[in-house]
Amino acid sequence: MNALRRYVPALEWGREYDRSAFSDDLTAAVIVTIMLIPQSLAYALLAGLPPEAGIYASIVPIVLYAMFGTSRALAVGPVAVVSLLTASAIGQVAEQGTAGYAVAALTLAFLSGAFLLGLGLLRLGFLANFLSHPVIAGFITASGILIATSQLKHILGISAEGHTLIEMAGSLLTHLGQISVITLIIGVAATGFLFWVRKGLKPLLRNAGLSPKLADVATKAGPVAAVVVTTLSVWIFGLDGQGVKIVGEVPQSLPPFTMPGLSLDLIRQLAVPAIMISIIGFVESVSVAQTLAAKKRQSIDPDQELIGLGAANLGAAFTGGFPVTGGFSRSVVNFDAGARTPAAGVYTAAGLAIAAIGLTPLVYYLPKATLAATIIVAVVSLIDLSILKKTWTYSRSDFAAVLATIVLTLALGVETGVATGVLVSIGLHLYKTSRPHVAEVGLVPGTQHFRNINRHRVETDPELLMLRVDESLYFVNARFLQDLIQTRTSTDCKTRNVVLMCSAVNEIDFSALESLEAINTRLKEIGIGFHLSEVKGPVMDRLRKSHFLDELNGKVFLAQYDAWATLGKSLHTSDPEKYDYL
Amino acid sequence: MNALRRYVPALEWGREYDRSAFSDDLTAAVIVTIMLIPQSLAYALLAGLPPEAGIYASIVPIVLYAMFGTSRALAVGPVAVVSLLTASAIGQVAEQGTAGYAVAALTLAFLSGAFLLGLGLLRLGFLANFLSHPVIAGFITASGILIATSQLKHILGISAEGHTLIEMAGSLLTHLGQISVITLIIGVAATGFLFWVRKGLKPLLRNAGLSPKLADVATKAGPVAAVVVTTLSVWIFGLDGQGVKIVGEVPQSLPPFTMPGLSLDLIRQLAVPAIMISIIGFVESVSVAQTLAAKKRQSIDPDQELIGLGAANLGAAFTGGFPVTGGFSRSVVNFDAGARTPAAGVYTAAGLAIAAIGLTPLVYYLPKATLAATIIVAVVSLIDLSILKKTWTYSRSDFAAVLATIVLTLALGVETGVATGVLVSIGLHLYKTSRPHVAEVGLVPGTQHFRNINRHRVETDPELLMLRVDESLYFVNARFLQDLIQTRTSTDCKTRNVVLMCSAVNEIDFSALESLEAINTRLKEIGIGFHLSEVKGPVMDRLRKSHFLDELNGKVFLAQYDAWATLGKSLHTSDPEKYDYL
Repeated sequence: MNALRRYVPALEWGREYDRSAFSDDLTAAVIVTIMLIPQSLAYALLAGLPPEAGIYASIVPIVLYAMFGTSRALAVGPVAVVSLLTASAIGQVAEQGTAGYAVAALTLAFLSGAFLLGLGLLRLGFLANFLSHPVIAGFITASGILIATSQLKHILGISAEGHTLIEMAGSLLTHLGQISVITLIIGVAATGFLFWVRKGLKPLLRNAGLSPKLADVATKAGPVAAVVVTTLSVWIFGLDGQGVKIVGEVPQSLPPFTMPGLSLDLIRQLAVPAIMISIIGFVESVSVAQTLAAKKRQSIDPDQELIGLGAANLGAAFTGGFPVTGGFSRSVVNFDAGARTPAAGVYTAAGLAIAAIGLTPLVYYLPKATLAATIIVAVVSLIDLSILKKTWTYSRSDFAAVLATIVLTLALGVETGVATGVLVSIGLHLYKTSRPHVAEVGLVPGTQHFRNINRHRVETDPELLMLRVDESLYFVNARFLQDLIQTRTSTDCKTRNVVLMCSAVNEIDFSALESLEAINTRLKEIGIGFHLSEVKGPVMDRLRKSHFLDELNGKVFLAQYDAWATLGKSLHTSDPEKYDYL
Repeated sequence: MNALRRYVPALEWGREYDRSAFSDDLTAAVIVTIMLIPQSLAYALLAGLPPEAGIYASIVPIVLYAMFGTSRALAVGPVAVVSLLTASAIGQVAEQGTAGYAVAALTLAFLSGAFLLGLGLLRLGFLANFLSHPVIAGFITASGILIATSQLKHILGISAEGHTLIEMAGSLLTHLGQISVITLIIGVAATGFLFWVRKGLKPLLRNAGLSPKLADVATKAGPVAAVVVTTLSVWIFGLDGQGVKIVGEVPQSLPPFTMPGLSLDLIRQLAVPAIMISIIGFVESVSVAQTLAAKKRQSIDPDQELIGLGAANLGAAFTGGFPVTGGFSRSVVNFDAGARTPAAGVYTAAGLAIAAIGLTPLVYYLPKATLAATIIVAVVSLIDLSILKKTWTYSRSDFAAVLATIVLTLALGVETGVATGVLVSIGLHLYKTSRPHVAEVGLVPGTQHFRNINRHRVETDPELLMLRVDESLYFVNARFLQDLIQTRTSTDCKTRNVVLMCSAVNEIDFSALESLEAINTRLKEIGIGFHLSEVKGPVMDRLRKSHFLDELNGKVFLAQYDAWATLGKSLHTSDPEKYDYL
C-alpha cells in the first residue's frame, strides 16, 4: 500500500478532497479549458499535425499526469518548444500531411514516455542536471526565435519549409511572391491585437473600474476573442475562397485509440530525438512545477515527476496525440485561477472532451493566421537575450556555452544546438579541472588558518613548501600535479619538505594515485619529505586500500596547522600586492 | 633564433655534440638497426602492408623526430598497437593488398601527422590526459590479446580475417582445415625459441661466464637468429613450394616519394581513426619518453613531443610508410645500448637505409610465420590483467572503466573499446560529482579545525548548521545543493544560521550561482541566516562580479573558525561511532 501510494500520489490528495477544493478546481478548469482550445490547435499546427491532435494530446495525458504527478498546479499538454522539437524530429522520417507523419508522432510520444518512465523507475532524474541553466536559457531563447519565424508563413499566407533560421528565411524569401494580402491583414491584426491584450488591456480595464480578478479573466479571454472575430470574418465574407487558409474539417470525436508505429527502423531513427525531447520536456516541466510548488511551500519529487510525465506521454501515444509536457503558460493560468489539486486537470480534460465532440465544427472557418498569431505572441515572451550579458559578466565559459547553444540552434536546428550546448558545458568544465588552481599557502598570523601567499599576508618557511591544490585529483589532471611538483622542486633547492594540503581534494582516482606514487618516489630519491594534510574521510578510506600510505616518505596530518607545527618555523612573512578580501 | 631553438631542439644538443657521444650513439644504432629489421617487416605485416613499408616507415620519421623531438632516447617507427589500429582503420575503406590500401595508410599517417602538429602548435598536449591510466592499461592489454590472436593465422599457415576477437576466432575455426603442418612447425618452433631467448637464454649465458653486457646483446640478437635459421631452412628445403608463406620480393630501394590520397571522402572516413591513432600513439610515446628521461634526470616537453611526432608522421606519409610513434621496446633497447642523443636515431635510419638497398633480397625466403612469432612474443609482454585486480581494490569506477575498455576492445574492436573507456571514465566522474559528499562539521576541541561530526569527536551548536560541500558547485550538482539545504532546514527547526564551508569548492558556475541565490532567498524567507566561509580567492573574485554578495542574508568569513566564533556556542559534543583516523 505504501509502495502504491508512493507511485500514485493521487491516492494521497484524493483522500482529503472536499467540496471547497472541488469548487476551486472547477473554476480553474473552466478558465484553462477556454484558453487551451485555441492553444491546442495552434501547437498541433506547429508540430505539423492535424488540429485535432492538439486537442487529443490535452485530454488523456492530463488525466494520467493528475494520477501520477506530484505537482498540484502543473498542466500537461502540447507546449511550444516540444512541438517544435517534434516537427523537427518527424520531418526527418516522414512527409507532413502523410499518415506516416502522424504515426511517427505517436511513436515519438511512445518512446519519450517509455524513456521518461524508465528514468523515473530507475530514479535517474539527476540526468536532467546535465542541461546547465545557461544552456537551457539559450536554448529556450533560440527556440522562441525559431518558432516565431516558423509561423511567419501562416501570417503571410505562403508555404515555406525548413528547420533552421537560414532555411526558413530562404524559403520565406523565395515564396514571397505568393503572399496573400487578406491573410496578411488578418495575421497582422490578430498579432497586434493579442500583443495589445497582453500589455495594454489590463491597465485599461483596471482604470475603467474592473476588479483585478475580472480584468485578469478578460485578458485571458483575448485569444478567444481573436478566434471568434477572425472566424466570423472569414465565414461572413467568404475569405476562404480568396486565399485565406482555414483550419477546415476537424472530426467530432473523443480521442481515438491509436497504435504508435513500432518498427525497429522507426525506433532507431526516433530514439535520439525522443531522448532529447524527454529531457528538455522534463527540465521545462520540473522548473515550472518547482516554481509553483515553492509559492505554496509544497514540494515535488523529480523522480516521480518522470513517472507522471512518462505516463502522460504513453497516454498521448495511444490516443492520437504527440509528445507533451508540463507547459509554462497553461500551468501559471491554472495556478492563478486557483486550482488546488490535480483534479482541476481532470475537469479541464472533461471540458476539452466536450469541446472535441461538440465544438469542432465552430472552428471550421478559423484562419490558420490567427493560430499563428497566438503562437507568436506566446513565444516572444520566451526570447530573452539578457542571459548573454549576465553570463558574459560572470563567467566566460558559461557565456561560451550559451552562445554556442543559441547560434547552433538557430543555424543547425534544435537538436544540434542543445547537444552542442551540453558538450561545450562538459568540455569546458573538464578543461578547467585539467589545469587546476594551485596556491602556495602560508599561516595567517595569530590563527591556525592557511591562505595563498600571493593574496594574504602570511608566514612561511623557505624549507617547507605547502601547496593547496584546488581540485579533485583524477585522470584529467593527474599528470599536471606531477609536472607541477617536479618543476617546483627542481627550481627551488631550499625545499626540505612538501605538504600537499588536500582540503579541496574530493577524490583521488587510480590515475592520480599512480601520479602521487610517482611524486613520492621522485621526492624520496632527492631527499625531500612528502606529506599530506586535511585529507577528507572518504578520500582517506580509499587511500588506505592502496599501498601508498605505507610507502609515503612522510606523514598524513589531520590539519595543515599540525603539519606546520611539526615541520615549519616561521622565518618569513609574505607581502602580497593584492591583499585580503575581507 | 630563440623561437627556432624552441621548435628545433636539435639545434640545442647539436652544439655540444662530440666524439664520445658519436661513438656511444653509433654503437647503440648498430644494435637497434639489427633489432629493427625483422621488427619493421613484422609490423608492416600486422598493418596489412607490404614488408618494405615497415622499413620505409623507420627511416625518414626517425630522422624528423631526431630534429624536432625532445626525448634523447625515444626511437620512432612502427609499433604494435598503432599498426593494429592502422589495420583496423584502413580495413574499413580498402581491401588488403590493393593500391588503395597503401594509399589509405599514407593518408592516415598524413592526417595523424597534421593533427599532432596542430595540437603541438596550439599547445593542446593536455588532451591526452583524457585517457586515464586504467583505460590505457586496459586498452594495451586487450590490444596485446588481439594482436597475438591476429598472428595465429600466420603460425597456422591459413588465411583468416577480422578485427575483433570473435571475428578472428570464427574465421580461424572455419579455415582450420587448410592448416599447413610445415608452417605450424616453423611457427611454433620460432615462438618457443624466442620465448626461451627472453626468459632462459640470459641466465644461461651469464652462468657460462659471459659479461652482462654481452649476454644482453646476444639476447637482443635472438630474433635475428630465428630469422636466419628459418629463412635458410625454407631456402635449402624448398619449403615455399610446400605451402610455407614467405615474405617474397621486396624492392631494393631507398624510401620512395609518395603522395597520400587527399580526397574529401577518404579524409572524412579516416579523420576519426587518425585522431584516435594520434592520441594513443602520443600517450604511448610520452609515457616511454618520460620514463627514460626520468632515469637520467632529463625532462621532455609534451607539447614539443607532439610536434616531433607530427613531423615524423608527415614524413611517413610522403615516403611510403604508415602511422608511427615512439615504441617501447625499440626505445628501451636504444637507451640500454647507450644512446646519448637523438643522433643515434639518425645513424639507425642510415643503417636501415643501407638494409633497404642491400639486404632485402636476403629476406626473400623469410617465412611469415617467423615474423608472426616475433610479434606474438613482443606483445605477450603487454598483456597484464593485474590492472583489473588493482582497480577493483582501489576504486570500483576505475575498475568499470578498465573492464569496459578490455571487453569492448576485444568484442567490438580497438576504436570502440578505447572510445568507450574514455566516455565511461568521464561519465562516472561526472556522476560522482553530481552527488557530492557533504559533511556536517564541528570544531575539533582545542584547535581551530573543523571536521565531519560523524567521523570525529567535535563540538557543535544545534542552532548553527555548518556544512562542508566536498565538490565544486557547477551545473551538474547545482540542484543537489538546493534540495539538500531545503531538506535539512525543513526537517530541523532549531537551525538559526547555515554556514557553507567552501574549502572544497573550487568553482561556482552560473547555474550554481543561481542555485545559491535561490537558497539565499528561501532561507531569508524563513528567517535563517546564510553564510559562506573559506571561499577561495578565484571563487571570491567571481562572486564579486555578481549581485549575490549584496543580497546575501549573512556574511562571508575568511575562516570557518571566525564563523564559529561569531555565530556559534559549543553546547554539544558529537560522539561518532567511527573515530578519528590518525
